[in-house]
Amino acid sequence: MDDLFAKRVEGVPKSFIREILKLTQSKEVISFAGGLPNPAFFPVKEVSEAAVKVLEKDGRSVLQYSNTEGYPPLREYISDYYLRRKNLKIPVEEIMITSGSQQATALTCMVLLNKGENVVIERPAYLGAIQSISFFEPVFRPIELLEDGIDIEALEYVYSNFPVKLFYSVPNFQNPTGITYSVENRKQIGDILSKHNSVFIEDDPYFEIKFKDVDIPSIKTFCENNVLLNGSFSKMVAPGFRLGWVCAQKNIMEKVNIAKQASDLHTSYFGQRVMYQFLADNDIEIHLSKIRSSYAKQKDAMLAAMVKYFPAEIKYTKPDGGMFLWVTLPEHISSRVLLPLALKENLAFVPGDTFFVDGTGQNTMRLNFTNSSEERIEEGIKRLANVIKQVLSDSNKLTFVSY
Amino acid sequence: MDDLFAKRVEGVPKSFIREILKLTQSKEVISFAGGLPNPAFFPVKEVSEAAVKVLEKDGRSVLQYSNTEGYPPLREYISDYYLRRKNLKIPVEEIMITSGSQQATALTCMVLLNKGENVVIERPAYLGAIQSISFFEPVFRPIELLEDGIDIEALEYVYSNFPVKLFYSVPNFQNPTGITYSVENRKQIGDILSKHNSVFIEDDPYFEIKFKDVDIPSIKTFCENNVLLNGSFSKMVAPGFRLGWVCAQKNIMEKVNIAKQASDLHTSYFGQRVMYQFLADNDIEIHLSKIRSSYAKQKDAMLAAMVKYFPAEIKYTKPDGGMFLWVTLPEHISSRVLLPLALKENLAFVPGDTFFVDGTGQNTMRLNFTNSSEERIEEGIKRLANVIKQVLSDSNKLTFVSY
Repeated sequence: MDDLFAKRVEGVPKSFIREILKLTQSKEVISFAGGLPNPAFFPVKEVSEAAVKVLEKDGRSVLQYSNTEGYPPLREYISDYYLRRKNLKIPVEEIMITSGSQQATALTCMVLLNKGENVVIERPAYLGAIQSISFFEPVFRPIELLEDGIDIEALEYVYSNFPVKLFYSVPNFQNPTGITYSVENRKQIGDILSKHNSVFIEDDPYFEIKFKDVDIPSIKTFCENNVLLNGSFSKMVAPGFRLGWVCAQKNIMEKVNIAKQASDLHTSYFGQRVMYQFLADNDIEIHLSKIRSSYAKQKDAMLAAMVKYFPAEIKYTKPDGGMFLWVTLPEHISSRVLLPLALKENLAFVPGDTFFVDGTGQNTMRLNFTNSSEERIEEGIKRLANVIKQVLSDSNKLTFVSY
Repeated sequence: MDDLFAKRVEGVPKSFIREILKLTQSKEVISFAGGLPNPAFFPVKEVSEAAVKVLEKDGRSVLQYSNTEGYPPLREYISDYYLRRKNLKIPVEEIMITSGSQQATALTCMVLLNKGENVVIERPAYLGAIQSISFFEPVFRPIELLEDGIDIEALEYVYSNFPVKLFYSVPNFQNPTGITYSVENRKQIGDILSKHNSVFIEDDPYFEIKFKDVDIPSIKTFCENNVLLNGSFSKMVAPGFRLGWVCAQKNIMEKVNIAKQASDLHTSYFGQRVMYQFLADNDIEIHLSKIRSSYAKQKDAMLAAMVKYFPAEIKYTKPDGGMFLWVTLPEHISSRVLLPLALKENLAFVPGDTFFVDGTGQNTMRLNFTNSSEERIEEGIKRLANVIKQVLSDSNKLTFVSY
């Protein structure tokens, strides 16, 4: 029965990352493949105390159905957070709690995208967003990520030549590249957005994992209308809750609310209440500063090992935050060829082509630095360097033989 | 900007129930409007113990990202449950944990439905399913619910004359009517399904709230292929977790898995682990028997009050389980006219037309009996009866004057 499935499913890629993760369960494998926070920093004891407290105080309500928008004090916390950290005024009514920022993107696409509409994404882009968007059969317009943000000329070209419906971006410590948009780049994006009738999704799960104490203004600062902000507690606290949020202006929020009702009625109220109690009873800044300094050291360890072991022709990004590094190999080297060789040496990474919608990016890879110790990071980069050198040398031999 | 939203949103009804619920917050209001379990039975202490235990034992894993399919022991529990309670063999690989059975339906629709395809639903049908399905712009084919199940003749007519893609049904203690399909009705449905290439969703959140200890075979017993089973812990344990599941054969599960990845990566792992620990450490049957006997008494109290106070021309169902009763007024009486009068008397219910996709059902209403004490149920039915009598008498006067 070939017509069993909806046509929209055909174009949606399966997560290759989740396939790789199945191969990296063994302790011998050093994995740069996942996107996992370091569990050593999860506030286990504090979460346990928060759970006991809310259940004791208000258990019958905590375990009951709740409203679609989410627990009001948790939404107030997020509203206060935006003012405190980003100098943005977001009223509580414009905030909805979702099952991770992934669901924020999925719901938004559900209410916005008609088949065949133009969607701008970064090149390379976050795989989860590619999946969410693909379900609605768009025409992707991927725009190159440069060192300081999106390629503005290309963005202007696309906005001038196509009716763009949606632009999805991760401007801070992007997944997969680790790139952060400069303030100038953000202003230019704001200018373009202000001139066109599209919706912009500013997905910002990594903001609090910044390694330097610099101000990074939200792109919403430079264009208010039709800008959605997605956020997440996954990296700030812990991902096992699946708690994120979407900020949307009233007319859009009304539709997102209906999509949320149809999708799962509301996000786990138990999870929301425990999270709020944790946030109310603990100083999140102390928690975050520990994460930041550790992740920064892990990132430094990875960069230092790359300097030490990588051949000179290998390029890589130097992120100011987040969880990922992006490696670019010489054009004729495929990371899909590297992967099985690396796995044989008990080393895992994600081949970069996964993050492209146009079948390119074969010579790139994503490395996660937050989920391995500094020692294992050095050892892992050493293994990876050896495999790269081997493939480089084989390809040189091959060239020599061929000509 | 009128073309901001996707066309698919236009046909999706907003939940009128959630609007009414906002009017029923005050303690003076006796509400038969919600679909809430009685929170007095929530195992608050046991959930607290389970939370402390899993966090102490395995906290770092409990708060980490997890797999899309869900926690394997929880899926094993569900597989064992089907064998024990319904004599069905469902392998663990064919079970996925979802954010309530609502999400199970939503994900299934996402991977199955193309615009304009024929979807059979009950008449009246569960509002959440109407919402989930509406998003994919189907042609609804509502089939009358009779006392002993779906109208088989009408079902046969629709299956013979249209290429049905999906048939969604709640065969046990249906929401909104409380009706349960007879065994004979299930067999006949199985026969029809076996002859056609459609998918059948058997949504069964209320199964464990049956008031009589009788065997009710799953419709899947009578037709194996392309039958999905949706279930939920919301009524068995507590809804605040938002934990349900979908059982689907391999080819369908593969697609549902991709939809789940794109929707929210996975269901709250924290919630899954606490739920499993609760189920492992407590005898769910003791818990369920308390719920069943209390809900049965509440249902009896509602029926007794109806006998005592309702005018003879009012018809209503007598459910053998679940949470709802269905009231049918004389054809010329609209429950939308009744509602404001009832609210003035601090009594709330859901007008039945909410559950119809064809604009009919004006003379019907849904009453919930699980969330009020027996005393308040009697008082509430008395108030409702008074309002009904008043409207009946007004309409008779009007008739008298008109002719």
